[in-house]
Parts: sequence; structure tokens; C-alpha cells
Amino acid sequence: MPLTDAQMQEIEAARAAEGRTRRPVAPGLEALLFQALPVLDHGFVRVIDYMGDDAAVVQAARVSYGRGTRAVTEDRGLIRYLMRHWHSTPFEMCEIKYHVKLPIFVARQWIRHRTANVNEYSARYSILDREFYIPGPAQLAAQSSSNRQGRGELLQGEEAARVLDLLRQDATQTYDHYAWMLNEDEAGNPVDPGRDGLARELARMNLTLNTYTQWYWKTDLHNLFHFLRLRADPHAQYEIRVYAEAMLQTAEAWVPACTEAFRDYRMGAVTLSSGMLSIVRRMLAGEAVQQAGSGLSKREWRELMETLGREA
Amino acid sequence: MPLTDAQMQEIEAARAAEGRTRRPVAPGLEALLFQALPVLDHGFVRVIDYMGDDAAVVQAARVSYGRGTRAVTEDRGLIRYLMRHWHSTPFEMCEIKYHVKLPIFVARQWIRHRTANVNEYSARYSILDREFYIPGPAQLAAQSSSNRQGRGELLQGEEAARVLDLLRQDATQTYDHYAWMLNEDEAGNPVDPGRDGLARELARMNLTLNTYTQWYWKTDLHNLFHFLRLRADPHAQYEIRVYAEAMLQTAEAWVPACTEAFRDYRMGAVTLSSGMLSIVRRMLAGEAVQQAGSGLSKREWRELMETLGREA
Amino acid sequence: MPLTDAQMQEIEAARAAEGRTRRPVAPGLEALLFQALPVLDHGFVRVIDYMGDDAAVVQAARVSYGRGTRAVTEDRGLIRYLMRHWHSTPFEMCEIKYHVKLPIFVARQWIRHRTANVNEYSARYSILDREFYIPGPAQLAAQSSSNRQGRGELLQGEEAARVLDLLRQDATQTYDHYAWMLNEDEAGNPVDPGRDGLARELARMNLTLNTYTQWYWKTDLHNLFHFLRLRADPHAQYEIRVYAEAMLQTAEAWVPACTEAFRDYRMGAVTLSSGMLSIVRRMLAGEAVQQAGSGLSKREWRELMETLGREA
Amino acid sequence: MPLTDAQMQEIEAARAAEGRTRRPVAPGLEALLFQALPVLDHGFVRVIDYMGDDAAVVQAARVSYGRGTRAVTEDRGLIRYLMRHWHSTPFEMCEIKYHVKLPIFVARQWIRHRTANVNEYSARYSILDREFYIPGPAQLAAQSSSNRQGRGELLQGEEAARVLDLLRQDATQTYDHYAWMLNEDEAGNPVDPGRDGLARELARMNLTLNTYTQWYWKTDLHNLFHFLRLRADPHAQYEIRVYAEAMLQTAEAWVPACTEAFRDYRMGAVTLSSGMLSIVRRMLAGEAVQQAGSGLSKREWRELMETLGREA
Repeated sequence: MPLTDAQMQEIEAARAAEGRTRRPVAPGLEALLFQALPVLDHGFVRVIDYMGDDAAVVQAARVSYGRGTRAVTEDRGLIRYLMRHWHSTPFEMCEIKYHVKLPIFVARQWIRHRTANVNEYSARYSILDREFYIPGPAQLAAQSSSNRQGRGELLQGEEAARVLDLLRQDATQTYDHYAWMLNEDEAGNPVDPGRDGLARELARMNLTLNTYTQWYWKTDLHNLFHFLRLRADPHAQYEIRVYAEAMLQTAEAWVPACTEAFRDYRMGAVTLSSGMLSIVRRMLAGEAVQQAGSGLSKREWRELMETLGREA
Repeated sequence: MPLTDAQMQEIEAARAAEGRTRRPVAPGLEALLFQALPVLDHGFVRVIDYMGDDAAVVQAARVSYGRGTRAVTEDRGLIRYLMRHWHSTPFEMCEIKYHVKLPIFVARQWIRHRTANVNEYSARYSILDREFYIPGPAQLAAQSSSNRQGRGELLQGEEAARVLDLLRQDATQTYDHYAWMLNEDEAGNPVDPGRDGLARELARMNLTLNTYTQWYWKTDLHNLFHFLRLRADPHAQYEIRVYAEAMLQTAEAWVPACTEAFRDYRMGAVTLSSGMLSIVRRMLAGEAVQQAGSGLSKREWRELMETLGREA
Repeated sequence: MPLTDAQMQEIEAARAAEGRTRRPVAPGLEALLFQALPVLDHGFVRVIDYMGDDAAVVQAARVSYGRGTRAVTEDRGLIRYLMRHWHSTPFEMCEIKYHVKLPIFVARQWIRHRTANVNEYSARYSILDREFYIPGPAQLAAQSSSNRQGRGELLQGEEAARVLDLLRQDATQTYDHYAWMLNEDEAGNPVDPGRDGLARELARMNLTLNTYTQWYWKTDLHNLFHFLRLRADPHAQYEIRVYAEAMLQTAEAWVPACTEAFRDYRMGAVTLSSGMLSIVRRMLAGEAVQQAGSGLSKREWRELMETLGREA
Repeated sequence: MPLTDAQMQEIEAARAAEGRTRRPVAPGLEALLFQALPVLDHGFVRVIDYMGDDAAVVQAARVSYGRGTRAVTEDRGLIRYLMRHWHSTPFEMCEIKYHVKLPIFVARQWIRHRTANVNEYSARYSILDREFYIPGPAQLAAQSSSNRQGRGELLQGEEAARVLDLLRQDATQTYDHYAWMLNEDEAGNPVDPGRDGLARELARMNLTLNTYTQWYWKTDLHNLFHFLRLRADPHAQYEIRVYAEAMLQTAEAWVPACTEAFRDYRMGAVTLSSGMLSIVRRMLAGEAVQQAGSGLSKREWRELMETLGREA
């Protein structure tokens, strides 16, 4: 359970306090607002604030004076046109802010996306909680032999058990030593008055990378979609993909027309190089093209056949 | 008057449509929302949307679960601390979106601030309105002789009249030729069916730089303050400064505690170089320091004496 | 001719001054360095500086200690892999700096690409040259009737002549009035000592949008390719496309392997939506798919058939 | 010693290979190029590439055609003027690329600076080395009692010894378990053929935050100075400050005039709020100002008195 009772109460209090606004309101996302969507064993994603909705994208594209009076189908058509033709600036006019709790090694992948605003819980100022990510048995995979960065077969039996033991035991032990080095109780007083306690900014280095951290993360819709395209993808590491999937769900509640267009023209889309396209044209013309003589490398040929749903 | 009746009605309709939200609401800014604040002779600034308030800055700095229950004075103290010590990320957690109508030469200065999202009215797709900025007599200044980019004495009499005539006449004539080249009426039909009309993307090149354009411009509070520090400054060109001043007024309505801190620690602040600081220390110790021997150039010495309110 | 004799001599002097360096050198680009590639009637693009080469992309992807000893074919394969799979960070490790002279309306399109560094010649400080872009007859096109932002048929005979006359005459007249308002000779002294002269920051507003400006523009290879994909595209406006084409030529001289991959996987590539892909698969399986029942809009169907080189 | 013999040889080979270039050359930095400047116990900073020099800043500010012929003192004056008046774009015209080896907890602070390009060694693809940062006794400080994020007194005797033991022992043990879970020898074959080995992307989570990682990091001079102002500051954590100090040394070798201006107007500079400035003016006028009645909080008053070198 990722939240304490006190935290749950703070969230419920925030959810209960409604106000009036002239701004665009996205009812689907209001329903989810502040709620923690659980991710992994102790993590979560929750939407803290948002700006804009589907109509705001249309409004910005038209630089209009009011909310516009066009039919919903016309707005949807414009949104799909903008997405298909890579017009990014109208999507930048919507903004969303998340509070995320996540393991440090996931945070390190995530932060590579630079076009976002971040406030992370500081381990220089504060003491991290005693929580670490331990994978479930269904995630405990061997190194893939075909894909240099992917996962292969699941570990079984004794090896799996031993791995879980090591992860749990090392995280616990290093955390206990972190706490010993700090020598502080919850009120900030020394546990052992005979010792000084190590500075927080130093003691944290003893923690393992599966320790949980948390941050506020804010981005615009264009960059959110870019993040989701890379991280909700089957090739992304499972531990970040589950965060992206929870966020995709919030996007659907927030901007349904934009998210539909994103699914069609980005997530489910494929890019064919000029060489691949010319092969597709030849195949459609009835030619029996082979890899040899195609101009594609074996790897590209295999990727193309997979895309087309044919045997390589 | 910068707005047509139809535009006024669209704005009023948007203002009348209130909804309920769980998000933070800034009452001061709600009162201004969508309204056009007039700037220059035909321009305006209006707030289209916003995200966050003073408390959101505090909440992000603390990575907290709820809205927090601290006293207002404690929040104000934290905001001032963050501003004073250049902590920028909490201020990035608030976002604001403007609709601005402005002369093209002002837009070209403005766009140098890259950390913002922009959707400009497109003169490739659409036809620009017949509106240009003509300075008032109080703005018609000569080139400053002391400051390479500033303004000096006001032009007088015949020269002033001639300048205004030229500006008005050239803008009118080039716009008329633009319209003739386009050869389109409001419905998009040829005015003169015997001619084709030039492509919009070409015809626009005949317009002068005081023609008005408009855009949606969205940025976060940190970058808004950075913009305001440079553009609401007395050294900024008058024609962009009046936009910055209108925006400063919206910031005050939106995030009063942040704006107060910004005024104290940025707008009204001065930076002393290490050399300047050592002179201030010597002066405080009673020494009669002169420019010669101060280690400062004449220019820096003059700047310092001005800062300290003393005769150079 | 875009350059004065004095400028040509400055450029030749810079080209003549060679030095020794331990940095990677791109011989193809050294040959072009500082030279003005002419664009439009008075514009140019010239490379002022660069950092990195094809091998630097590989080196960054591998985070290696030296220049690496792999075969050229292996490096080329890695570069193609990185491009195909949208790994952008290794391409960000190369940087290029241009000096560009261009009409203001082109500069306004260009500046929308925000991930670059820009220093523009300042019309607040300095006086712009008496040079404006006048399209050649082959560029004088009517508004396209099928494409809202494109060009259609060429203007002919009298209308074409009249348009050129207007463009030339308005630019000349507004520039002459700009000069009159400034009232400065080359040495900065008043032409007419009986008048003050208008401040430069004001007088510039009388210029038309085809007046030439110039800037230093610096970006990394990833963002250069992004710019070129949008601006060297047939849908881009001719007047910016010719700049992009000149820059593409400099990229080829600089990083030939990266540019080859860019041509194959970006410029010549097409993106198929999930709906489009499923139609291609059905067609390859021998089905005679029609627009009706395809799930695609008429517009998307037409785009797909064009991509596949088939009649819609 | 942070480098292996093979790495040293790669570096020496790169240093030995000189070429000819027309680009600006910074002789001071050429001398340092590729060399590893040691930082902490196993880390380093080395310059991999650079673009531009002091003259390039001047050239961009003037948008000039050649290298310019002004006197060195005039260039220095312009650079100081640009720095003093916060003109940032000319400094963005220089670029530098580093290869850095650093503990993960330092990398996590560093990466908050988003305006840079980064390629990090991937623990999804590759296996991290068995190297961790262990502080020297002079760094082993207690939590500061006055400053919430700083360091206080040094730990002594038994406690210090125990802390070092724990850090060393936990890092070693978690690394050994990481290696056991991976079950790979240097050639990528299983150490124990009876087991599968855990995927690299999972096993890495068992490492502690003082494990070393490495990356290529590239930024422009303006953003480098921003980084150095924050991280070469006495308030920065020691473990990142030593990196900043090594980089400051490379900046001095590269762009001496810019770095001098940076030291005077940024590093050694202080900012006085409007309230602080008015107190300085009153003190200079001979008034004996006290905190009570000054309008400053106690904390601000103390900060001001410290700045002025007076007792609070």
C-alpha cells in the first residue's frame, strides 16, 4: 500500500474542495484528480493539476477569440489532421502536472526527457522512506539472448528465490545502515545521543537504486505524448512502462480526441524508410521480392516483414 | 478599439460560462479571465488559461500530498526564500496562457524568449487585418546620443508631423497593395475575376513591420518572471514594455505572494560585482574612495554611484 | 551579389588562417568553411564553425575513451540503427554554427524552431541595409485552390509585371522614408543638421517584411535534421526551402554517414497510421480494398494511395 | 586511479593525432584536450571537444563577417559589458563537450540542469564497473545544525571508522550480488552454466548510489557558467563542487576573458533586494540602521550584514 492514512486524508480533503472557474474543465479528468493510481509495489501516479482540454488545442490552432462554436466532429477532424501532419505547437497549449512515486532507477530513465518541469523530494534536506521495489515473480526475467537490452525467459525455482532474497536483503540492510548513520528519530533528535550522525547528503549514497523517491513532474501534451510513445512502447523496460500506461489512462480521461489521434498516428503507426516503401510498392505490383537484392540489410528486412505481418 | 463586436461577444460568452473544478482557483485572475487589456493603439493582452497559484509553488517545493495546512505567512516566507536563493523549479509549476495582439516588430523581440509555447496567426493561411501601430506624439523620440539603443529628446513640430504622416501613409499604401495582390474578398472570391491573385505566403512580404499580428503564448511562472524582468525594465523598448506591464498586472492578480517576492528580489534588485562590493565595504568603513584606484572602469563607477544614489 | 568587397576580403582572410587542432576535423566541411553559399537574390548561408563528425556520434553512443577503432562500415551500421530507432542524443553531440542573410518574413518562420541559439543583427543598434527580396518570375504564383497554404499557377503577363512593380516600389519607398526618418549618414552624423532624426528602434517599423536581416544561428545535428525534415520538404514555402537545401549540402559535406541515414529514414520515409498499415496488409494478402469500408477518411485514403503510388 | 592502461593508451592516441583546421583554435584548451582531470577517488572530467573561443563571443555579438580586427582590450571590454548586462546569447555561441565519470548520486543532482545534451553509459546494455565513491575522512561530516542541507562538524574516531566500514562493505556486497545475479563473465558467457542470470536492466537496481557511472555531457558557454555559478559555489555539495572546480579550470584555459568576466560579475557578485539596497544607502548616508525597523527579516538582515562584512 503506497499511502499512509494521513496522506489518504490529505488527498480526500483536496478532492472534496471544489470551486468555480471560468477556465475549460475536463470532466473525465476531474473525476480522477488527486487520486493515486497504484503502480508497481509501492509506487503511484496522481494528477495534481491540468490546463486545457481537446477544445483548447483547436482554439490555439485557430488563434480564436472564444471557445469556438464548431461541431465536435469538425474539431476531431482538425485534431487528427494536426497530429497526422506533425503540427506540434497546438498540443503544447495543454499542460498536466503529476505527483509520482517511483524507484530511483526508473527516475533515472525518466529524467532523460528534458522538456518537463521537475521538483524531486530532496534527500539532502529530508530522509527517504524505507520502501524499495522488489519485482514480482512474473518480472524476474533473464537477459534476452536476441535483444541486447531486453528480457528473455523467466527465472525459475531456486535461482528466482535466491534473487528475490538478495534484492530484499541488500535493500533492507543498506537502508538500516543509512538509518544508523543518520542517527535521527522522526523528530530529528539523535537516536543515540553519544554520536553525531552523518550528514543526510552523504548518508543517502548507501541506498540501493530500487529505493523509492517521488517528484512533481509537469509537461505539455505534445511532450507527454512523446514520452508515452517511447515509454508505453513494448520495447520500454517494464518498470517504466507501467507508469506510462497509467498516464495514458489519465490522458484518455483528459483529452479523448487528442489521445485517440495519438493512438492511431503515433502509437500504432509505423515508419517506412524510402527503401522499405519501394519494396512495398513492388510487392503490391505483384513482384516476389527477396531480401537479397532488396537493398535492405537482413535486420531491416526482418523488421519490414514483421511490420507487414509476413514471414521473413 | 482593438476588438470587433463579434469578438467582444465571443469573449463575453466565454466569461459567462462557469464550471466546477477541483483544481486550485486564483480568484483574482478569474475576475480578469478572457478580458482584453488594451495595449498600444490596437493591441491587447488577455489571459486565456492558467494553472496553479501561490500555494502550488509551496506544494511543489515540499512535494506534498495535499494542499498543505501551513499558515499564509509561512507560505509567503518560503516563497520569498525560494526567490531570494534562485530556486527556480517550484515557480515552473505554475503556467499561464495569453492571447496577445501586437505589432510584428514587437513580436520579433518577444520571440527571442524561447522557453515558451507559441501559436501565431498564420499569414500563409489567412489574411492579416488592416491595422498598424502608429506611435503617439509622446513616443516619437530621437535617437539617444548617450545610449546606443535608447531614445532621446522628443521630435517636435514639423518633423514629428512628417514622421507620423510617413508611417501612416506607407503602412496604408503597402497594405492596399497587399490587398490588391491578394485579390480576395471576405468570402475568398476574387475581387477582380479577371486576375488570379498572388499567393498569401508571398503577398504578406509587402507589409510593414508595424502591422499587427496575434498569437497564443504560454509559459511557466519562472520564465514569465524572467521575461518581465527584462521587458518591464526601464531599458526595454517602450512598445514591448507596455505589454510587460499589462502582464505584470495579471501576475499580481494571479500569484500575489510570488509577484511581491519578484518585485523585491528581481525587479528592484541590483547586482554588485565583486569589485563593486569591495568598494561599498570600504565606503562603509569610512574611506573616501575615488574612481581612480577603485579598479572599476569609468562606466562601471558611474553605474555604481547611480545605484547607490550618489553623485559620480 | 550579396557581399561587398570588404566582406569578401574578411571572409578570404578567415579562410586563409589555418591552425592545428587535436579535435576531430571534417575535411569536407573545412573546404566550405566561411564561404557564402548564395540563396535567393541577396541572401546566403555560410558555415562559421562546427563541432564533431560522423565518428563523434558513434563515440558518444558508446561513451568511449578514444576515437574508437571500429571499421567504417560498422560505424555506418550503428549510425543507421540509431537513426532508424529514433535515438536522438548521439546526434545532439555534433554542433554547427551558420551565418545567414535572409528576408524578415523567412526569419519569422525560421525562428519558430526554438532549440537553437540565435544572435540577430539588431535594428535597435544598427541600420539595416537597403536590400529586399523580390521573387523571380518563376516564383510568382497564385494562391493554390486545393491547398490552403500552397501556391498554384504562375501569374502571367501584366499581372505578374504589376506585382513585381509594386513589391519593388513599396520596398524602395518605405526604405527611403526609413532613411529620411533616421537622418544619419554612414558616420552617424545628421544628413540634415536642422532635424533630430527618429530613434532607430522606431524607424525600423516602416520597413517591409521582405527586407533582409542576418543572424548567427547555431544548433546541434539532431535539431538541424529536424529543421531540414520540415523545411527541405516540398510542402515548405519555397523561400525557406532554398535555405534548407543549402544547409543540407553543408550537412553532407560535414557528416556524410549521418546525412545518408537521415535521407533514408527521415526525408524519404513515410509514416503509416495503424489504420493505413492494416489496409496495406490486406492489399498484400490480395484483397481489393476500397475507401468505403476502409475506415479511412477520403483525405487519408487519397494520401495513402499517393504514398503507395496507386490511383485513388 | 580512474583509468586502465588500455584507456590511457586510447587517450594518448587521440592526443597524438593532430590535424589542420580553419576554425578558431583555443591553444590553452588544446593542451588539456582528452586528458582526464582526476576528481574524487575514481572520477574524472575530460574535455572531448569544443567550439569557439573568446573572439567567437564578440563575433556573434557583432554578427560580423570575419574574425574582426579590433584590439584585444576592446574585445575584453565588450565581453565584460555583455556579462554585466545579462546578454546571454553571445555566450551561447561557444560549446564544450565533456566525458565525466561520477557517482550516481552526483549524476542525479547534475542532470537537473536540463539545457545540455547527455549520453550516459547504459546499465541496460552494459555492466557497470566495480567502483564506488568512499569519502575521505575530511569529508565525513555530521548534519549541520544551522543549515538544513549542509554539513557540520567532522565525525571522529570510532563513529567515522564505522561509517567508512559500512559504506565500503555495503557497496562491495551489493556489487558482488549484482555480479552473481548477472552470472556473466567478461566475454558475456555464464559464470555458472547451470543458471540463467538476471536481465541487466533488473540486476542494476541492487547497486548503491555511490557506484560510478559516466557520460558525455555537452553544453554551451552560457549554460556552463550557469551550472558553475550554482555548483562551484560554497553552498553546493562538496562531491559535485569538485567537478565544477575542475570544469572552471577548463573554462579558464578555453575562454580566459569570458571566465574573468564570469568570476567578477557572477561568482563573486551579490544581489541586493530593493529593501537591502535602501539600507545600504541609509548606512552610507551615516545612519545607524538596526534590524528592527529595517523592513528586513532577521534572516535577511543576517545575510546582508555578512555580505557587507559587518557584525550582525
